[in-house]
Amino acid sequence: MNKVYLDNNATTMIDPEAYEAMLPFLGENFGNPNSLHSYGNATHAALGRAMDQLYAGIGAKDSDDIVVTSCATESNNWVLKGVYFDILKEQKNGKNRIIVSSVEHPAVGATAAFLESLGVEVTRLDVDHNGLVSPQALKSVIGDDVALVSVMNANNETGVIFDIKSMAEIAHAYGALFHTDAVQAVGKIPVNVAESNVDFLSFSAHKFHGPKGVGGLYIKNSRELTPLLHGGEHMGGRRSGTLNVAGIVAMGKALENSVKFLDFERSQVRRLRDKLEDAILEMSDTYVVGDRQVRVPNTILASIKGVEGEAMLWDLNQAGIAASTGSACASESLESNPIMEAIGADAELAHTALRLSLSRFTTEAEIDYAIEVIKKATNRLRAISSSFSYAPSWHKSGL
Amino acid sequence: MNKVYLDNNATTMIDPEAYEAMLPFLGENFGNPNSLHSYGNATHAALGRAMDQLYAGIGAKDSDDIVVTSCATESNNWVLKGVYFDILKEQKNGKNRIIVSSVEHPAVGATAAFLESLGVEVTRLDVDHNGLVSPQALKSVIGDDVALVSVMNANNETGVIFDIKSMAEIAHAYGALFHTDAVQAVGKIPVNVAESNVDFLSFSAHKFHGPKGVGGLYIKNSRELTPLLHGGEHMGGRRSGTLNVAGIVAMGKALENSVKFLDFERSQVRRLRDKLEDAILEMSDTYVVGDRQVRVPNTILASIKGVEGEAMLWDLNQAGIAASTGSACASESLESNPIMEAIGADAELAHTALRLSLSRFTTEAEIDYAIEVIKKATNRLRAISSSFSYAPSWHKSGL
Ligand SMILES: Cc1ncc(COP(=O)(O)O)c(C=O)c1O
Ligand SMILES: Cc1ncc(COP(=O)(O)O)c(C=O)c1O
Repeated sequence: MNKVYLDNNATTMIDPEAYEAMLPFLGENFGNPNSLHSYGNATHAALGRAMDQLYAGIGAKDSDDIVVTSCATESNNWVLKGVYFDILKEQKNGKNRIIVSSVEHPAVGATAAFLESLGVEVTRLDVDHNGLVSPQALKSVIGDDVALVSVMNANNETGVIFDIKSMAEIAHAYGALFHTDAVQAVGKIPVNVAESNVDFLSFSAHKFHGPKGVGGLYIKNSRELTPLLHGGEHMGGRRSGTLNVAGIVAMGKALENSVKFLDFERSQVRRLRDKLEDAILEMSDTYVVGDRQVRVPNTILASIKGVEGEAMLWDLNQAGIAASTGSACASESLESNPIMEAIGADAELAHTALRLSLSRFTTEAEIDYAIEVIKKATNRLRAISSSFSYAPSWHKSGL
Repeated sequence: MNKVYLDNNATTMIDPEAYEAMLPFLGENFGNPNSLHSYGNATHAALGRAMDQLYAGIGAKDSDDIVVTSCATESNNWVLKGVYFDILKEQKNGKNRIIVSSVEHPAVGATAAFLESLGVEVTRLDVDHNGLVSPQALKSVIGDDVALVSVMNANNETGVIFDIKSMAEIAHAYGALFHTDAVQAVGKIPVNVAESNVDFLSFSAHKFHGPKGVGGLYIKNSRELTPLLHGGEHMGGRRSGTLNVAGIVAMGKALENSVKFLDFERSQVRRLRDKLEDAILEMSDTYVVGDRQVRVPNTILASIKGVEGEAMLWDLNQAGIAASTGSACASESLESNPIMEAIGADAELAHTALRLSLSRFTTEAEIDYAIEVIKKATNRLRAISSSFSYAPSWHKSGL
């Protein structure tokens, strides 16, 4: 086996049909959609189709409720900063607080910290040992002073799914808006904004087999939101910048196809994921975060006692297998896994995190090979690991 | 002649080499550069090369002075809002004012207006009948209370080049930062940040034969600037969001090739532009904005008396020729050309604007054909134009 990609929560390979769909708009059909000539017009049908695919993909009604952005990081920044300028800055209706979970992606987490530096009060919801944020936890801290609640739909490291529908309801009962970062949910589980009744939802194409550099923000009822990118010309003045036609076309196609494969994701991807997870749990002193029933079907965040995450990555990479110690974003810094810390794991557990994330393109042969390599690497690394023989306290809390 | 594209200031066709360079990173080399495995590593060499090409292309020194963004609109918003949070919000050193030209692209203009709504004082520099902003004009309004001066390098509608080096010097003498939106200069004329000594410079790939959805911001000495996209992980924490590898690789290649063609631009593109311009000026009652000597080599903003801009566009489009009445952004709204208004033209002149913008891919045969079609369309439209026979006052000021 040459190459096995098990890092689909970091980014995904492009869907071949999305790739084919985008090429003409990188090449010959390069017109600016806003231009009043045939080059501009040549983009309109494909753009319209792509927007329809996006609306259908997240269950939005066909109005102006989706705005294309350059990535989910932009979408997340836009929501938090937009709400800052619209409500928090002048504390409209006495609202001067936002609530986020403590396990948000930094695009939400760091933006919340930035708003905090501007005087906004930020409440961070803890997760339990399963990596879950409960609606009850939200209920116990929310009040009429809250302008926005932002809780992700599924966590990028654990794959744990949050009950955003209940949380949106709680937020609304206190006159707060509800945002969900659905980057890790879209394309993996059904996402339906009409049903969950969220006010804002962020997504990023490259997490569901679209290209990098394009994403979107769903905004319920095209609610006004102070732009992050002023200019006043594109997307109804809400997000300026020349449209990335090729990216939008590919994102639409990628979402359409991902949604077609949701059943496959729930059955086949899940089966392979469970097979890999079972094999890891069969080894002694291993641990996986979060109940399988409340996780997206593709993700495993495991801890293999005595095996440093980076050491494991190295062995896997030598064998052609791509994985992660957690979010790709954090990988560069070689730090311990922040989610592990959030769930109350001790330092060793946090440093032994291994994230494996599958996709619909993952094959059974690949999983069998990965199981073999992970077992071998575990034996090799445990044999040379001093920390393993020291037998440190396995974890802080009752994991 | 089937199709002639004379709307290169709106967007450009992609350079075939840039197109080829990006494909592997849309396809097989889809890894996230931040990942610690071979898929991530496979992107590093190409990303490094692309960044080198960007540094060389604008004469930046090889440090961390260029940050990739999703477009110049993002770059422009970032500079103005970053300076707002860094300086203006608390009026550091008594600075509570910015100066912009009155002919900035809306990505600067609308952002300045937004800052105005937050309490920042905004001074707008008028242009003269040539569409020029003089350093003297800046000198006469600047003071120690100015935090930022933002004047574009070349105007998107007229192609007129501004003396940004002198203006940066004036800004610095008053302790102000200097930003230039160089979207219409990069790839058309030499751009060198070391020589012009600007603090910030924005560019957008799709204006120099790169793809849409990727751009950049040069920041002198990697100066700290409050992020527009928080997240704290990519590009040294300055601009978060998973890197658009394919876009960056293509942008680097496109810039490298554009810079190679700068001589060709100055000689051949200019010759064809002048030929087209001369042919327009040979017709009675026609006018072109801005002295040829201070214009980028590819642009003509003409006014053909008695011929509505949109009517001309229609005739041109029927003949397969793509042009504009001004910025593609404004095209959608069918309004009069704002630059025409800024230079003091009367309503008729403003409604007869026709922008023709060439590129290094424009051929002599295409220009000959365009001349023929424009002449024919002028005759046809003048014959049916009532306004022409009314002979309204040609222009307000001494154009
Ligand atoms: C002078 C100028 N600045 C900024 C922009 C914005 O570029 P983009 O749409 O790629 O963000 C444009 C083009 O639309 C432009 O001509
Ligand atoms: C949950 C979550 N939110 C946001 C992002 C940011 O997406 P992007 O890098 O495409 O902006 C990611 C991925 O990095 C993510 O996993």
